[in-house]
Amino acid sequence: MDENEKKSERIDDLLSHNLRIIQSDEVFSFSMDAVLLARFAGIPQRGKILDLCTGNGVVPLLLTTRTKASIEGIEIQPRLADMARRSVSLNGLEAAIQIREGDLRELVHITGHGVYDAITVNPPYMPLNGSDIKLNPHQAIARHEVNCTLEEVIQASTRLVRNGGKVSMVHRPQRLGEIITLMRNHSLEPKRIRFVHPRVHMEANMVLVEALRDGKPEVRLLPPLIVYQENGNYTQEIRDIYGEVSKGDSV
Amino acid sequence: MDENEKKSERIDDLLSHNLRIIQSDEVFSFSMDAVLLARFAGIPQRGKILDLCTGNGVVPLLLTTRTKASIEGIEIQPRLADMARRSVSLNGLEAAIQIREGDLRELVHITGHGVYDAITVNPPYMPLNGSDIKLNPHQAIARHEVNCTLEEVIQASTRLVRNGGKVSMVHRPQRLGEIITLMRNHSLEPKRIRFVHPRVHMEANMVLVEALRDGKPEVRLLPPLIVYQENGNYTQEIRDIYGEVSKGDSV
Repeated sequence: MDENEKKSERIDDLLSHNLRIIQSDEVFSFSMDAVLLARFAGIPQRGKILDLCTGNGVVPLLLTTRTKASIEGIEIQPRLADMARRSVSLNGLEAAIQIREGDLRELVHITGHGVYDAITVNPPYMPLNGSDIKLNPHQAIARHEVNCTLEEVIQASTRLVRNGGKVSMVHRPQRLGEIITLMRNHSLEPKRIRFVHPRVHMEANMVLVEALRDGKPEVRLLPPLIVYQENGNYTQEIRDIYGEVSKGDSV
Repeated sequence: MDENEKKSERIDDLLSHNLRIIQSDEVFSFSMDAVLLARFAGIPQRGKILDLCTGNGVVPLLLTTRTKASIEGIEIQPRLADMARRSVSLNGLEAAIQIREGDLRELVHITGHGVYDAITVNPPYMPLNGSDIKLNPHQAIARHEVNCTLEEVIQASTRLVRNGGKVSMVHRPQRLGEIITLMRNHSLEPKRIRFVHPRVHMEANMVLVEALRDGKPEVRLLPPLIVYQENGNYTQEIRDIYGEVSKGDSV
């Protein structure tokens, strides 16, 4: 790795878990989306979990506070996969987390079908639409559907998760129609949905969806997750999540 | 009409609009669902609006406070269609509202395709599933998919609404996955969605969906509509809606 590249990196505390994470504003820093996904996702206490589009590994790192399952992350960008691996080492979590550099569309040919008990994914949010992307390539790949479309992410998830396993995704509510249609077309039935609103009187800017492989069609629509109080401070729920993604059930 | 049947009827004030409505607990009384739908639905100021599954005509009656469009309601139960017509007369709204007794699945053969600018519908919420229905036949038809399924309601809507027209529905969030998939399969693109939560910390028990015929896939997820404050009183928004479904835009 180029030492100039490393210069943009920093090591941040990952919430209050004695976890640390390597970040870089030039390449990838985690956002609240990843934190809420790691808290929301239905995951088993044992077995195998896979995080697609793992970036700098923030979701696998946070999931270790909730489960003893073996966690894999897959990331297509070598630079990011390397950052994620170094963060895993930094926290001494090599036994719990394995980071794989590769293309999620090809993974099933290596692992076989239905081998994971749960999958999490914080995919790129923006369709390509032939639009001009004014970001550096690292950011473009993380945010736009350069390397995989929403349908490819969902298709990979349904192939990789076992029958009855859960797939949890964070995305933009604008794309809810597509998310639900694509999931259901690929045998993933949405079962729990939660919308995140910056304030109680504002439209949602994030959606958390948990789907069950081959589930029956009936979805629970959880209470709205409100980020800020009217006075501009975080709500108690967000403070609790940032304080302790640890113990306890999914939100 | 049998005079014994009429005995169960009463005339209620319909919110604070100087509107009155004939109701009957044995047959049909309107619920908050209809009120919120009448407030939420995107409707034009002129042109033609159709309310499917109109019951005792509550939605058409309330819509007259928001628009000068011509409003039709269709109801399959003769008893209910008669109640609706009498409520229309009671309010002297015969010029604004026409109640049709009939099967919404057949309507397109009478009217032709794409003749309405907007459609509203508060359909039966419960699938049949061969389950034993412990209600009288009037209530069973209003609440269960006895006479038409969700797909038939959506299919009728897409046939009857013009290209670029809006279809607004209130339903149970449990069926969100089916609603979105069926709408999109039938050229109705969800554009505005609002969930109704009894309290801010509770799961949603109602969903309002507005879809656009042949719209592009991008949905706005509106602020949660909260019914009760923590002290058990209605929230200001609900008080405003019950006070004045009149003037102003859709919620």
